[in-house]
Amino acid sequence: MDDMNDIQEKYITEEGMDDLWNVWYSELHDGLSGLTVKVDRIVESIKSDFQRIDVLDTRGFGKMLVLYGSLMVCDRDNNSYNEMITHVPLMTHPRPDDVLVIGGGDCGALTEIMKHPEVKSCLMCEIDRKVVETSQRHFPHLTAGLADPRARVIYQDGKKFIEDTNARYDVILLDLSDPVGPAADLFQKPFHRKVFDRLKDDGILVAQSESPYYNQDTFQSLIANLKTIFPLVRPYLCFMPIYPSGLWSFAFCSKKYDPLKDFDRPRYNQLELRTRYYSDEAHQGAFALPKFVADLVG
Amino acid sequence: MDDMNDIQEKYITEEGMDDLWNVWYSELHDGLSGLTVKVDRIVESIKSDFQRIDVLDTRGFGKMLVLYGSLMVCDRDNNSYNEMITHVPLMTHPRPDDVLVIGGGDCGALTEIMKHPEVKSCLMCEIDRKVVETSQRHFPHLTAGLADPRARVIYQDGKKFIEDTNARYDVILLDLSDPVGPAADLFQKPFHRKVFDRLKDDGILVAQSESPYYNQDTFQSLIANLKTIFPLVRPYLCFMPIYPSGLWSFAFCSKKYDPLKDFDRPRYNQLELRTRYYSDEAHQGAFALPKFVADLVG
Repeated sequence: MDDMNDIQEKYITEEGMDDLWNVWYSELHDGLSGLTVKVDRIVESIKSDFQRIDVLDTRGFGKMLVLYGSLMVCDRDNNSYNEMITHVPLMTHPRPDDVLVIGGGDCGALTEIMKHPEVKSCLMCEIDRKVVETSQRHFPHLTAGLADPRARVIYQDGKKFIEDTNARYDVILLDLSDPVGPAADLFQKPFHRKVFDRLKDDGILVAQSESPYYNQDTFQSLIANLKTIFPLVRPYLCFMPIYPSGLWSFAFCSKKYDPLKDFDRPRYNQLELRTRYYSDEAHQGAFALPKFVADLVG
Repeated sequence: MDDMNDIQEKYITEEGMDDLWNVWYSELHDGLSGLTVKVDRIVESIKSDFQRIDVLDTRGFGKMLVLYGSLMVCDRDNNSYNEMITHVPLMTHPRPDDVLVIGGGDCGALTEIMKHPEVKSCLMCEIDRKVVETSQRHFPHLTAGLADPRARVIYQDGKKFIEDTNARYDVILLDLSDPVGPAADLFQKPFHRKVFDRLKDDGILVAQSESPYYNQDTFQSLIANLKTIFPLVRPYLCFMPIYPSGLWSFAFCSKKYDPLKDFDRPRYNQLELRTRYYSDEAHQGAFALPKFVADLVG
């Protein structure tokens, strides 16, 4: 905590001098276009063993967590990514007892998973302890699920974990940052094959698959690769205004259940999930792809 | 054309001096966050009787048309807005003989409408002749429909046109810019009542209804007002990366036909529309609202 005090002292601005502070966060695709956000305050800037981690305070989106130069989550009630990576598989699998999250250091997905009483255990395998600790300090609404006795965190390389474990899961989420930093290997086919083996015979994998607008190559090759491994692969979309282009995608990969046919309506009605984005309607609608996206995964 | 030559002479940069040109277009919501795009060249900047009109050339999105400070269309094959405002009503109405577009000066909607052979006439009522002319010079793929003998353009205030005409239409599109410039009055209930009267007994109105993320008040009140006038109002969405937040909305308002039940599949299959975004799948999926949007229109 000494580090933090140092940082705060360094960054605090004097009363009445806010007008002289003109700092913008800009996240550009190919250096040509992207999101720009006015920054009120640099809350924290640290370097872990794996990446640079920044927490910025903004009036537009509240506090923002930036990993390896990419905006991951923000304070403003805008949880579509975490809700959609989680509830789509969990409302499709009839008995999601054991869930594994690879990545997901902000703990937003884990906290959504804990909204499902039928989940018996949730293990999160995150490489970077400092991401979890930073999120706990600044995004407590995202990390609330850590307090649940069913949740456990292991700090390890997801690739090594998958290679070493004998456990099998009902649902696995690849909640990874962009394939440029520590997560790069986890977008590759050899890794996906091993993940397939760590799923039970009726297991479901959901992998975040980048922006189908800006990252068409990654999206297209990821879906194509997964289709060679899983009997059923369905891409789905969500609107996420703080991610590049505002449109984000996921790959729903399944050994048995189909998210369009096996959506568990009685359980959904009973659960009364508290969500901002996910609903039965959003679940179905997310699989209706605009033509340019459907064409990419033909 | 003299104006244009002047402008080009003023703006052309010398060979090899491109590195010294660092200009960005930024469109901010409340001055706090938004899209930023690197600009290669100011192609044209004019003032009409109604607004400022800028054409900017960019590597990120190709040429961009900016009206009254808002980015309207770009060159890059990204026509989701025009396709979705057009084909959703035209594939729902069984006999869309006579179509009226209010606004729509870039002619993108008109050009999409001309893809439907069953349309007998399409009148576009645009207040600002200079928007049409500028689009013809710089966005010929958007204005191609003007050459169709079924298309006609009248340069007049949409409000005055609707008040004065006795004609009735099968489909009316309110393809308006944001409710801050010349289009402000056309977002109001008295205007919508008059539009209702200019529709045939089984007519359909589609109105663009802003970003349900950034412009929640406008979206919410527009839908609520339209519900007091039309027996059926269904909001629908499209992904539009160059519009604020990337998520855009439309109000489907109908005297008879329901876009979810009356989608004309045989005609759709026969037409083989050349689109980038719209499809039968996109048509249905656009009405599946995320929870935060559904909550706004309860």
